[in-house]
Amino acid sequence: MTRSTVWNSIAATLGQEIAAGHYPEGTKLPTEAELAARFGVNRHTVRRALTDMAERGLVRSRRGSGVFVETAPTEYPLGRRVRFHQNIRASGRTPARKMLRLEERPCDANEAEALGLTTGDPVLICEGLSLSSDTPLAQFVSIFPIARLEGLKEALAEIPSVTEALRRVGVEDYVRRDTRVTAELASAGQAALLGLREGAPLLRTVSLNTTLDGTPIERGITCWAGDRVALTLAND
Amino acid sequence: MTRSTVWNSIAATLGQEIAAGHYPEGTKLPTEAELAARFGVNRHTVRRALTDMAERGLVRSRRGSGVFVETAPTEYPLGRRVRFHQNIRASGRTPARKMLRLEERPCDANEAEALGLTTGDPVLICEGLSLSSDTPLAQFVSIFPIARLEGLKEALAEIPSVTEALRRVGVEDYVRRDTRVTAELASAGQAALLGLREGAPLLRTVSLNTTLDGTPIERGITCWAGDRVALTLAND
Repeated sequence: MTRSTVWNSIAATLGQEIAAGHYPEGTKLPTEAELAARFGVNRHTVRRALTDMAERGLVRSRRGSGVFVETAPTEYPLGRRVRFHQNIRASGRTPARKMLRLEERPCDANEAEALGLTTGDPVLICEGLSLSSDTPLAQFVSIFPIARLEGLKEALAEIPSVTEALRRVGVEDYVRRDTRVTAELASAGQAALLGLREGAPLLRTVSLNTTLDGTPIERGITCWAGDRVALTLAND
Repeated sequence: MTRSTVWNSIAATLGQEIAAGHYPEGTKLPTEAELAARFGVNRHTVRRALTDMAERGLVRSRRGSGVFVETAPTEYPLGRRVRFHQNIRASGRTPARKMLRLEERPCDANEAEALGLTTGDPVLICEGLSLSSDTPLAQFVSIFPIARLEGLKEALAEIPSVTEALRRVGVEDYVRRDTRVTAELASAGQAALLGLREGAPLLRTVSLNTTLDGTPIERGITCWAGDRVALTLAND
């Protein structure tokens, strides 16, 4: 066998063992030295196999502590209707929202432009944490044009689901107009909130939901724990 | 004026000056001490204004070197037809591709599943760098089911645009079936390639393009410089 065939075959064997549940999600793989002994190769060849597996997202190397089997991220579809509780349930996990702040204030120029308001018009700010089976998944800020949504503050204080709270104030259905996705590093505050280390990768989405007739009803800014979620887009 | 009105008004003034082109993209703002002297406030108030501007993505603080005006990221639409050259041109920049590797090899199990092949079938691997007005934007690996695309290797060696190269081998049109977006940190190798520092935030997309009749023709894995691009999705 050529050297490249050797590390390929080690990566394939370990990949099959992970798929078969021999090494469950989040567990540590044997050390490079142990794997080298098992496969009868040098550590450089083992490292090449592990690098290949890391590039394919199967394992993750944590400096100084070893190589771990990746936890499969929550798949989160960004379609025409984006519903947090529904999306998380569809991924086989339990959704939850923790509200951290709910207050009215005048909107700034950016918010006014996004929501079709005049700067200074009142908006409702709803800030919180989205959880998937008790793991923090994202920090979110939703900005609602409160004059169009009378009673929403009271509804959101009682009901964790935005969809349900909107229904309570008469919005039976709403659709996602657009989403903008960027990547950034977690600040100390975000890291503490999401249970990540400072500088961990985040996905940031800025989105707009409207009623079916196109009236903006929610601008959302969400910072997702980058290794716990995969945003998916399908063109059917 | 209350203290909060003071920093708000400093942030608004600087924001207008940036918008007016007084401080172009990428330039350094005056130091905190200079701004404090200019506005007749203490440095703490200036810092609060700059923090607010940083949170809104207007400026970025680089530890030890100052506060810089953010470069607006390239807006990159992920629609039904995703075309690199067209997308970059639409953002007012000049697209370029630098090929780093072009080779055939047998596909692995993941690739086979994505492309509707049998493990071991030949695929063409095309690896390179995507640039936007000479700035590296992304590192990409495209995997093509080469048996369906005779002559593609030769076409890609000559033509930087995948769309044009596919046309040369008879694929007049193709569509994006799905895209999966995650966030990760740049490895040393990625950082060197993209001109970022190690640990900078990356957007990683895994996508599938098919012909109009649904036959997979390209699996793409792209790592985007997270602060140079915004992936956008619109539901029309």
